Amino acid sequence: MRFKATVAYDGTAYHGYQKQENAFPTIQEEIENALLELVDRPVLTLVAGRTDAGVHATGQVVAFDLEWKHSDTQLRHALNAGLPEDVVIREVQRVSPHFHPRFDALSRTYVYRIYQGVVRDPLRRMRAWHLMKSLDLAALNEAAQHLNGEHDFSTFGTPPQGDNPVRVVAQAEWKAVEPDELHFTITANAFLFRMVRSLVGTLVLVGQHRMTPEEFRDILAARDRNLSGTTAPPYGLTLVAVNYGP
Amino acid sequence: MRFKATVAYDGTAYHGYQKQENAFPTIQEEIENALLELVDRPVLTLVAGRTDAGVHATGQVVAFDLEWKHSDTQLRHALNAGLPEDVVIREVQRVSPHFHPRFDALSRTYVYRIYQGVVRDPLRRMRAWHLMKSLDLAALNEAAQHLNGEHDFSTFGTPPQGDNPVRVVAQAEWKAVEPDELHFTITANAFLFRMVRSLVGTLVLVGQHRMTPEEFRDILAARDRNLSGTTAPPYGLTLVAVNYGP
Repeated sequence: MRFKATVAYDGTAYHGYQKQENAFPTIQEEIENALLELVDRPVLTLVAGRTDAGVHATGQVVAFDLEWKHSDTQLRHALNAGLPEDVVIREVQRVSPHFHPRFDALSRTYVYRIYQGVVRDPLRRMRAWHLMKSLDLAALNEAAQHLNGEHDFSTFGTPPQGDNPVRVVAQAEWKAVEPDELHFTITANAFLFRMVRSLVGTLVLVGQHRMTPEEFRDILAARDRNLSGTTAPPYGLTLVAVNYGP
Repeated sequence: MRFKATVAYDGTAYHGYQKQENAFPTIQEEIENALLELVDRPVLTLVAGRTDAGVHATGQVVAFDLEWKHSDTQLRHALNAGLPEDVVIREVQRVSPHFHPRFDALSRTYVYRIYQGVVRDPLRRMRAWHLMKSLDLAALNEAAQHLNGEHDFSTFGTPPQGDNPVRVVAQAEWKAVEPDELHFTITANAFLFRMVRSLVGTLVLVGQHRMTPEEFRDILAARDRNLSGTTAPPYGLTLVAVNYGP
């Protein structure tokens, strides 16, 4: 039978989610190793979104087929016992044998964290991008509202081969969660490669008054990858949820 | 001239604050190495409180004597350039040559973090003690109020040789900062060795209804080290402030 697992991880020590020829460890290998340990044969896994090296997750979704005679909770316990402390299965549930975590997902939600302060913070160094000067929150949100709806996002990323660069953004908002910490939350049906980090790197220019919200709208409309700002570092990014229908 | 430095660190990789014969690295060594690099001769440092291995700080206070012709901000920059990314000088200021960070401190404030959830959280594993079942917040605070004022804290720690075990607690309070995260904040004139972690380990028994708030009050009054619960793990603890007079 097929299982859907919600996975959280600290991406700091990993070369991203996906198994690769010449880079390890990866999150996928850790999960497949835990499954192998459990049933003593290789188990293939499917994933909702391949996060980059250093990117974190609290709501990644993975699916796999397994014969399992005990409860879902017992499966979660057994898998977590075989996982390192920086990866955890938060929840396991039986799903239709046709469930695919990527193709069935209606949308994904990412959060990007920025820490603003004159000195760096050792306790947030793996979770938030440190910027010395405070950003203009109103300007950030004025620019971010231009992301809502359907757009060709070629300025901010590259689609996989043969795919089109149009994505639909349902929510894009900056919030000050603490006086010195900003969170950018974005939900879209899907994302281009490095799209959130590219958006954040460019939005930060607006927050620094080096670009106006109107200029941001215009470079989005220009569909030119050369017009985006720098790509924000991976450690500020967390995949928080993959959303499915009822 | 004498400088007072406010220091933050992620204690995960360190054998505590204080330099030791057979255990390194320590925070003290990192700071003294940065000073040595800067002025090309050994500089002695004084500290407000020696934190244990794995304990963090956002407001540790260190003092040292230095000839420095530039600004305080330039000194901070120069020292931070020589420190690893898990230690940072947040602020530097010139003080009286008689200033002693430990003896002049009126009080210290610590925060202990607890994460409650059925599964562990990879992203909080170095900052919060994970407990599977939620604690009774009202019971925790009912017990914690017995800590206020002057008490012989022998049940919860050992004083340095020749010192007495009486300490004065100005504040001891539990707060739910998120539905799944509790913070215990305690301010006292000074603390016995491992006192905060011993208090937390015992208070948790009250939060789990394995001890009543009245029993907690009674074991405090008993002044017997054997009556305390287990010592809470170091990674949940942060020294957040050392308070001095005006």
